[in-house]
Amino acid sequence: MAQLITLITDFGIEDTYAGVLKGVILSISPGCRIVDITHQIPPQDVRAACFALSTAYAYFPKGTIHLVIVDPGVGGKRRPLLIENEDYFFIGPDDGVFTAIHVKPGLKSVIEITNREYFLEEVSSTFHGRDIFAPVAAHCANGCPSSRFGTPVSDYVLLDWPQPSVVKPGEAQGTILHIDRFGNLVTSFSRDYIKQMTGNRTFRIECAGRIITQMVPFYSCAQPGELCGLFGSSNYLEISVTNGSARDILNVQCGDCVKITAG
Amino acid sequence: MAQLITLITDFGIEDTYAGVLKGVILSISPGCRIVDITHQIPPQDVRAACFALSTAYAYFPKGTIHLVIVDPGVGGKRRPLLIENEDYFFIGPDDGVFTAIHVKPGLKSVIEITNREYFLEEVSSTFHGRDIFAPVAAHCANGCPSSRFGTPVSDYVLLDWPQPSVVKPGEAQGTILHIDRFGNLVTSFSRDYIKQMTGNRTFRIECAGRIITQMVPFYSCAQPGELCGLFGSSNYLEISVTNGSARDILNVQCGDCVKITAG
Amino acid sequence: MAQLITLITDFGIEDTYAGVLKGVILSISPGCRIVDITHQIPPQDVRAACFALSTAYAYFPKGTIHLVIVDPGVGGKRRPLLIENEDYFFIGPDDGVFTAIHVKPGLKSVIEITNREYFLEEVSSTFHGRDIFAPVAAHCANGCPSSRFGTPVSDYVLLDWPQPSVVKPGEAQGTILHIDRFGNLVTSFSRDYIKQMTGNRTFRIECAGRIITQMVPFYSCAQPGELCGLFGSSNYLEISVTNGSARDILNVQCGDCVKITAG
Repeated sequence: MAQLITLITDFGIEDTYAGVLKGVILSISPGCRIVDITHQIPPQDVRAACFALSTAYAYFPKGTIHLVIVDPGVGGKRRPLLIENEDYFFIGPDDGVFTAIHVKPGLKSVIEITNREYFLEEVSSTFHGRDIFAPVAAHCANGCPSSRFGTPVSDYVLLDWPQPSVVKPGEAQGTILHIDRFGNLVTSFSRDYIKQMTGNRTFRIECAGRIITQMVPFYSCAQPGELCGLFGSSNYLEISVTNGSARDILNVQCGDCVKITAG
Repeated sequence: MAQLITLITDFGIEDTYAGVLKGVILSISPGCRIVDITHQIPPQDVRAACFALSTAYAYFPKGTIHLVIVDPGVGGKRRPLLIENEDYFFIGPDDGVFTAIHVKPGLKSVIEITNREYFLEEVSSTFHGRDIFAPVAAHCANGCPSSRFGTPVSDYVLLDWPQPSVVKPGEAQGTILHIDRFGNLVTSFSRDYIKQMTGNRTFRIECAGRIITQMVPFYSCAQPGELCGLFGSSNYLEISVTNGSARDILNVQCGDCVKITAG
Repeated sequence: MAQLITLITDFGIEDTYAGVLKGVILSISPGCRIVDITHQIPPQDVRAACFALSTAYAYFPKGTIHLVIVDPGVGGKRRPLLIENEDYFFIGPDDGVFTAIHVKPGLKSVIEITNREYFLEEVSSTFHGRDIFAPVAAHCANGCPSSRFGTPVSDYVLLDWPQPSVVKPGEAQGTILHIDRFGNLVTSFSRDYIKQMTGNRTFRIECAGRIITQMVPFYSCAQPGELCGLFGSSNYLEISVTNGSARDILNVQCGDCVKITAG
């Protein structure tokens, strides 16, 4: 089948940057297929791109090439990377955007991309997405093996990813990892973490000075306008409001504190 | 030719929800082609999704599978549906989003999707787009017949669609169905309705306290800034402002009243 | 390989206009591939569409058909055009949107599209994108030669494109051509123009009452928050702020003045 390339960037959709990427890719690999995951990562927000990638990449067919370009350090010393694990390829800057991949089992190789043979002829210092990452992804789609693009590295950048921490027995502190279009607050508490901590006892959630005790299985289970907790589609604890926006009601943002207390 | 699947959702483009749908589809049906119609339906606005579908679906090749996911009731009792009519397939929740299809001639079957064989292995209670609708669409694209997905139903949900009503002879009341990016107000008066009501006589339009008497054939026909009426590309009466936004000038929203008076 | 059609429009992504274009194209040319460049051109902003096209078209494979629909004059006297140059086809309204193409070498033909055989059966007066431009692009993708669509014209519309002008020796005045998602101000000064004017001497930039003397090779080179100049990926002088938005800091918009002074 045609090779798939997905795109996660902070390019937005008003400019032609994402379109230009596609033109470059299709010029080199005319048969490959391109899927936009999102171009709406907030500008320079490497952490948000890392989260987006972590929620999406595993739903694509094996062999898919995931291109992630949130690249505030473009033109400077940060390295371009090509990562290969058991199932996928990942291409983008070495700025921590691949933290979720680096820490997973199944990593096969992490290559610093250095072989200019696979770049556009002229390489700007402001748009490596176009001049380096897109052409490398296209050559990768054409079957060029990872080892041809450069040399292995092991000192790649890892983000200090927010993990929940136990404050005292039965009480843990976490953060809001992501807020989605519906205003649902995705927290850093995974289903497994909470299960282990509470041992299947009930628990209450604290966020922005409000206490939430109602856990529901799905969004429309609570009364419209009511705050509730649930495990979302990525198995993280979410704070939600039926037919409403928890963000607007709690007036919070990514990185804000969330506390859970068992019993 | 490759099977086409179109997408209408309220997922937005900031999150990875729409991308994940595509990954799931392409994992099951690697050869099919996916076209975004829009992901910007206002959250939970089933009525807006129904209108969007009604304006777009018939322009696609016969055999196209239209996936419509605006699903505030996900996880609850609302049923997943697969509809087949003479020309197309439609897949999504039974919440009224397919009203425009149900009421059209040519309906062949309406199936409640129940066969878990065609779902993802693990089905969440918050994201049936990913776990049920996308895989079913992909299997449908692979040629699996409708009858395999479940059993026929006839008590599907129909929205109470806003129809114009005659107030007195020569005077009818309707609403604003949709406001587009340009600020054009698409009303519930079809060209045929007005023709029948006015018998090709002139008529005037009332909206937000303003009276509009000028009907034009196209947008740039009136003076810049001037309010006018015209029949838009879906054959509904629109209220427009040349090089401007009727929404901003009249300060109206979807559902607001529009009146027409013949003669 | 499959024929490529790219799209630049002001249709936005909330409505179904862009989706309908794709349905029409794929109904006529089921094998062709469609790439969105952007649908977020500000409504009726022909100049912005012209700039977008000029930055993107040349990155696509030879033979690509570029469809550009920003069409405030739809339904009126403006003509539909099909342009062929050495490498590409361009289809859209004759309202100046193709200025950057008309003035480039390599122009082969400019055809006024008149042959109704290639239109949809019913042609509205408000949506020629759907009824004329999309079907013509699809027939063009199917290999129909340019000459079949109409007759050559030479009096096509050219925008009065903003060129920098010399105020006095060593001092030139230009404008902001475009502001991107990151708040970078793309000016009308090309790298070549500045090189010629300053003869590789240093220069200073004036914009919104601020004087900028620092030229950097890439965005993260300056201190965060600092204003700087650089040559962007399209080889125009840009005014930028590392990890910030020059637009927000200078409070400017497209068309505003920029001055450079050599030495």
